[in-house]
This record gives sequence, C-alpha cells and structure tokens, in this order.
Amino acid sequence: MENEQRLEWLLDSFSPIASKKVLVHGGGRRATTIAQKLGISAPMVEGRRITDDDMLDVAVMVYGGLMNKHLVAQLQARGVNALGLTGADGNLIEAHKRPVKGGIDYGWAGDVDRVNAAFLANLMDHQLTPVVSAITHDTKGQLLNTNADTIATEMAIALSKMHEVHLVFLFEQPGVMESLDDPDSLVTHLNPSTYQTLKESGKIHSGMIPKLDNAFAALDRGVSSVRIGRYDRLEDIVNDQQNFTLITL
Amino acid sequence: MENEQRLEWLLDSFSPIASKKVLVHGGGRRATTIAQKLGISAPMVEGRRITDDDMLDVAVMVYGGLMNKHLVAQLQARGVNALGLTGADGNLIEAHKRPVKGGIDYGWAGDVDRVNAAFLANLMDHQLTPVVSAITHDTKGQLLNTNADTIATEMAIALSKMHEVHLVFLFEQPGVMESLDDPDSLVTHLNPSTYQTLKESGKIHSGMIPKLDNAFAALDRGVSSVRIGRYDRLEDIVNDQQNFTLITL
Repeated sequence: MENEQRLEWLLDSFSPIASKKVLVHGGGRRATTIAQKLGISAPMVEGRRITDDDMLDVAVMVYGGLMNKHLVAQLQARGVNALGLTGADGNLIEAHKRPVKGGIDYGWAGDVDRVNAAFLANLMDHQLTPVVSAITHDTKGQLLNTNADTIATEMAIALSKMHEVHLVFLFEQPGVMESLDDPDSLVTHLNPSTYQTLKESGKIHSGMIPKLDNAFAALDRGVSSVRIGRYDRLEDIVNDQQNFTLITL
Repeated sequence: MENEQRLEWLLDSFSPIASKKVLVHGGGRRATTIAQKLGISAPMVEGRRITDDDMLDVAVMVYGGLMNKHLVAQLQARGVNALGLTGADGNLIEAHKRPVKGGIDYGWAGDVDRVNAAFLANLMDHQLTPVVSAITHDTKGQLLNTNADTIATEMAIALSKMHEVHLVFLFEQPGVMESLDDPDSLVTHLNPSTYQTLKESGKIHSGMIPKLDNAFAALDRGVSSVRIGRYDRLEDIVNDQQNFTLITL
C-alpha cells in the first residue's frame, strides 16, 4: 500500500475486472510512519502490537482516511464508481473488542461478529465498487482496528450466501512457495489433500499456515475459490494464468 | 467539532430528526493540531491558508478519516444508519482545483462543479444518513480541500430539485446578531428586504455578509429556508423555537 507505483499497477488491473468486486485494504507501513511522526508508538505486549487510543486514531486516519480516499479517487479516475467504507458506515461490519486473553488486553482490536452482506450486495447492484478499510465498530460508538485479511474473508463468506465469490489475497510473494529462495517453487494449486501432504512434509512456511487454514475455512463456509498471489499479478490471477496459488476444495 | 461534549449535544439533537437528513462537516481545529504535531504548517499567502500536498493529506486524514468515522460510529450508536462520504465516494461532488487568481495559487483547494444529487437521494431512500466531509475530487484522481459551508450549500441546492430542502448552519453564535456584545440582539428573521436594511445600517458583522449572501443565493436557487444558529440548539432550530435566525425569500 505504501508504494505509489505498486498501487498504480494494482488499480490498473483491478479496474477492468468486469464482475462485481470489492477491494479490502489496510494501510501498510504508512500508519507506522505517521504514528512515528506524531510521536506515537504502539505499545508491544509479548511481541504483539496493542491498539491504544492514539494508535486507533492513527489507524482511522490512515486506513479510513488517507489510504481509503486515495484509492477511491484513483479508481474514480479509472472509471470505477468506488465508494469508500469502514465497518461503521452503513453498519457494514459489526465487531466487538477482543476479550482479554492470557492477561493480554489488545486494546481497540476488533473481532468480527457480523457482515451486512445485503447492504454490500445492494451497493454493487447500484454499480458501486466498495473499497473497505480495515476498521470496524461495536455499534455502541467505538471504532475498532481489525485485520484486513479477516475482513476480506468474513465479507467473502457473507457474500457467498447470495453470489458466487472468488477471494484473492495479494501480497509480496507469487503465492505459496515450497521454498522462498526458489522462485520456481510456486505451488499452483492446493486442495485439502495436497495441503495436508505439503504441511506434513514441512515445506510450507509457518507464517503461511494461519492464512491457508483461514482460506480452507472460507471454502468450507461457501466461498468458491481462494487465490493468493503477488500485488502486480492481479490481471493474471483473475484470468487464471496460473502465476499464483489457487486454493479449492 | 473539536469539543467532545458539543459533538454529543449536536448528535443527540441531530439523531431524532425524522425527515431525511445529511450532515456536512469540516474538522475544526483538530486538523491544525495534528498538522502541528506532524511538523506541517500550512503556507500563508497574503493572509490566506494554502492547501499544499502535506496539508491536503492532513485534511483527508482528519476530515475524511478521524472526524467522519467518529461521527458515523456515534450516529450508529444512536440508531442512525450513517454513511460517511467524501466528494470522491460514489462521485458525489465533482470539483476543480481553484485557478490561480491575482498571482495566488491556493494549492489543492477545490471549487465545486457538480453534486450528484440522485446518488445522495438514493442513499436516503435506503434509510441511510449521509455524513459528508469537506473533501471533493476532480474525477482525475486528485482529492481537493473544499469549504464545508460551500459543500452544504451546493448539496442543498442540488437536492432541492427533487426534495423540499431546509439548510441549517451551526456555529458558535445564536445566529445573526445586531451586536456581538448583546445576546438579546439576535435577528430572528431575515428576508431580502430586512437584510438590505440591516446591511445598509452597518449592523451586520462584515464576516457574516458572505455567509448571508450565499444563503440568499441558495434560496434563489430552490432551497426552501436557511437557518443559522448555535451548535447546541439544533433541536430548537428544527422545531422552529426561534432561538436562531430564519432566512427566507
């Protein structure tokens, strides 16, 4: 999200997608940079970043304001009628403050309770393209910082009750790799059985396992496919050019 | 906008309004405070603040992010299905960069070209309450900083083609005052003829004259009434309790 050239590539390949689409984003390192300039640093507890009052303000400003409106304006320039949203807007995503676990209070981190899929679908029926930032609310006036992958997954599951949904995660790697040092080791297809085999062989990077577990959970709950690929390959990914990892049941 | 107690009063009286409604806001002194903390100061040219790149980012973060999402979450908590917007979202407000005038380049200040009133009316038909921050776009990817009074006026005029529109401006004073030192000098009603008389007598504060000229221009272009009053009196204002200035043709 922090590199203008990468964003341009992403938006150039996102814009022509003809089917109904939703873009979900965080704010990347921009939030950290702005927090630092404001003299704010997120408290860390046992290696985890805590969302205190100040960090929540920064997240709302950067994800919900700066990044979201930049994306919306850039999509409008590409002929996409984008509409920026947080989970508070139109009561899109209800969440609750993450309960204290093992003595750790995560601050204003939100766990998702419910996605208002009918509202989202209605916007798309009106030719609007929702651009959703990683902020939710508790319906009692409190905004909450929520993981963007989780929001995308929960929205995909909720929308799958009324639409065929394909979920795409974009990141820095070409997809799931057997070895991060070998660009030819991309796993082009995973299903529960091949995933199990690869996992048992120890060939999947431990950081990918929660993402992949979530992906299979989304498939179990109605999402048609999950794709994981690199930010500059969205066009190949939606055209099934196999420069990515396709995950199906 | 910067005082939490005042905001609560405002939202408590805004929420129960039964008719369709739109809230338009800026960010008040909060933007200046955050700009200062970030080490940014708006360049001044001949006494006017200029919106340079950094100040535009601050405006987008604070108006479009922090304030807008705070208002939306607080309205949701009051049972109002609020939806936060900038002029870029759903292409709500098209604007252009203010042209250089008398050698002054105002930077990323936007002058409004067009309000997408059909979109706004459609949202309200779906029981949504738009909350609009003072940011517009040029449809080519550039966000623009735009005066909140101007946005409210232009939206009121555009909506008056399809609805009866009453425009309310809230500020620090009880309304138009004959003398700022005398709280009993509130002018409760202005029409073009009484405005002319008061203006000629020199009894209207010079800072109010552009606001009032705009108000009469809005009435000429289809708005049914304009009310100017204090932020904590919105309930009286909408119930016509005359603790404000009513402006009609």
